[in-house]
Amino acid sequence: MIARARELDAADPLAAYRERFTLPEGVIYLDGNSLGALPIATPAAMQRAVEQEWGQGLIRSWNDADWFEMGSRVGAKIAPLIGAQPQEVIACDTVSVNLFKLISTALQMRPGRKVVLSEPGNFPTDIYMIEGLERQGLAQQRLAQRDQLLEALGDDVALLMLTHAHYKTGDLFDMQALTEAAHQAGALVLWDLSHTTGALPVDLNRCAADFATGCGYKYLCGGPGAPAFAYVAERHHADLKQPLTGWFGHARPFAFVDEYEAAPGIEQLQCGTSPILGLTALEVGVDLIAEIGVDRLHAKSQALSEFFLECLTERGIGLDCISPANSAERGSQLSFRHPQAYAICQALIARGVIGDFRDPDVLRLGFAPAYLSFEDMASAAGHLAEVMEGKEWRRDEFSERSSVT
Amino acid sequence: MIARARELDAADPLAAYRERFTLPEGVIYLDGNSLGALPIATPAAMQRAVEQEWGQGLIRSWNDADWFEMGSRVGAKIAPLIGAQPQEVIACDTVSVNLFKLISTALQMRPGRKVVLSEPGNFPTDIYMIEGLERQGLAQQRLAQRDQLLEALGDDVALLMLTHAHYKTGDLFDMQALTEAAHQAGALVLWDLSHTTGALPVDLNRCAADFATGCGYKYLCGGPGAPAFAYVAERHHADLKQPLTGWFGHARPFAFVDEYEAAPGIEQLQCGTSPILGLTALEVGVDLIAEIGVDRLHAKSQALSEFFLECLTERGIGLDCISPANSAERGSQLSFRHPQAYAICQALIARGVIGDFRDPDVLRLGFAPAYLSFEDMASAAGHLAEVMEGKEWRRDEFSERSSVT
Repeated sequence: MIARARELDAADPLAAYRERFTLPEGVIYLDGNSLGALPIATPAAMQRAVEQEWGQGLIRSWNDADWFEMGSRVGAKIAPLIGAQPQEVIACDTVSVNLFKLISTALQMRPGRKVVLSEPGNFPTDIYMIEGLERQGLAQQRLAQRDQLLEALGDDVALLMLTHAHYKTGDLFDMQALTEAAHQAGALVLWDLSHTTGALPVDLNRCAADFATGCGYKYLCGGPGAPAFAYVAERHHADLKQPLTGWFGHARPFAFVDEYEAAPGIEQLQCGTSPILGLTALEVGVDLIAEIGVDRLHAKSQALSEFFLECLTERGIGLDCISPANSAERGSQLSFRHPQAYAICQALIARGVIGDFRDPDVLRLGFAPAYLSFEDMASAAGHLAEVMEGKEWRRDEFSERSSVT
Repeated sequence: MIARARELDAADPLAAYRERFTLPEGVIYLDGNSLGALPIATPAAMQRAVEQEWGQGLIRSWNDADWFEMGSRVGAKIAPLIGAQPQEVIACDTVSVNLFKLISTALQMRPGRKVVLSEPGNFPTDIYMIEGLERQGLAQQRLAQRDQLLEALGDDVALLMLTHAHYKTGDLFDMQALTEAAHQAGALVLWDLSHTTGALPVDLNRCAADFATGCGYKYLCGGPGAPAFAYVAERHHADLKQPLTGWFGHARPFAFVDEYEAAPGIEQLQCGTSPILGLTALEVGVDLIAEIGVDRLHAKSQALSEFFLECLTERGIGLDCISPANSAERGSQLSFRHPQAYAICQALIARGVIGDFRDPDVLRLGFAPAYLSFEDMASAAGHLAEVMEGKEWRRDEFSERSSVT
């Protein structure tokens, strides 16, 4: 398959973008869905921010280097990747904190309704943040399997909150249909785009989605623990009442008045001082992903995972794939269930193929389309085949559960 | 006074630490209380984190570079600066977000009491975060002037929340006395140490303080928008019920279970994924400040501001100083009230003396003791004297309010 892979690479319009990322020698990185690779341009941008803007500019850089506008500026650059208007997106805080703001807002906008509906097995922090509002006595959690979500959409539901591409399986929700159903039931909708943004196109505006948030450190390549983003449809900006009313969300933060007055636009979602170093790295990643273009990235990610499966089939390897068979129905990943998934993952890592393991028995391989080649696919599939054929997972060093991730 | 300043510098045991910071040529930086200067060691640490840990280590660095422990590790290093045990402090999120967690926790621990007591003119975000909990219907804000705080401590008060060193005037609260008074009234206490940490010694444990938070980007020199820290007295760890229950505060985040189970210790204050790049810069600053030592820093900051006032007096400049006259009663700053404070600040900046302006009429000068010299004091006082004598604030370019800070 290597020859075939090279042909595909030669014809790949995105092949040259691989040179825009740093990848370690001898590694095939199938975990860009957990932490995206480092863009080549990032170190110089960080150095400039640290040595020039901070070191030389000092406090003046809040004005001179436009630090005040960074959250809005980076948000506006993320907007076209998710079908939003620039003034509807802001980069700030973490996905978890943004979930809290947006769930709270939805509850405020639907007085008399306390239920936040999601699915069991959603990414844990999404569910935990509902639990945080339950602790406050303000929300009531309801989890329903995906095929029972429509039934669960009763008139007590304030918010339907779902993750577009499932973190473990890659299953996609039909964003348009579910948003419509929620609206018909009088509920608002919040989409977690953590496993979507930068890998799959979405169109929040076309779906009339109310709220969204997503991660900066996966497909956007913003670095470990990068700031997240939050989206609120413009029609809701006047009604927003989020409870994390920090000074950066104030209409006039430097008036230093005792009374909170929310900024009129998406800036009211900001809370504390913007994390400038994190935003600096995130901006480089967003610029690069936007330059490549999310439609091209999506097409390539589908082609990569399809080719990977072909290579496995060619080698006669049958694994229990829990991701949708049709690449149009999954995120940019393939997940396989196996009782020895942990040890298989470790054996692959020892061979330089970095994927990840998700409790209790899932091997998860991500196909970040910006920097992977078809040759990577053929090689990784070859390594996986050899691990399976040689039952390498039996080796003690692979089965001992030491690492945290 | 320059000769005298040079004598003082020659005798200053901290003089050599100035070389451990980057300071722009031609600048006397009196705004380290807003954004601390860049430590010389920071760029290399950032480069290592970006190029090695992220670029080469990729996802493996969560284990191999101890990213998981960074919030706890940096918190433990901050602990001795504020009189806390290492397991009582964690670096995470922003001051604003940490205020929300800690105010919420206090309200949960004092059922039947809804009042959060503070003073008018406290740093705005502190007051705004109470307002956020008012929006949720969970808190009631009460503001009382400092001399009326004890009277206002009724049996409806859940939490007394104050900033130790006032951001505008530098006035200090008697932490011990107010903590005791609050406890006698059945209330808990939360200290905002943003203008304290790294410049003045405090002893949270000796005062039996319940909660604290503080800023990473001022005297700790953690960089623009650095992560903040939060402190909870160990005796409260088992009762903690903060509502921002994100996955990084879970006892077993990688079990990926639907049920939230708080980590047993201070880690339960974490919410989303740790901001690794921000923590990397913060750790360098904290290490350096801890190496110098907060008692020595405090002594020098008092000597600096006293000498600065002497220099002004020597020049015959009388300004309306709103900071306490006794350096033992103020933070590491001097603030002057003047109707033309904005233009005076701009005139100083044009001369390379960077202080800041606080609405409506305050010129605020900070004396970050780690990197300022007595000669800086003499020069800065000389510039201020010339600005006042020449009425430079009358010049149009200084009085137009264009900048944000």
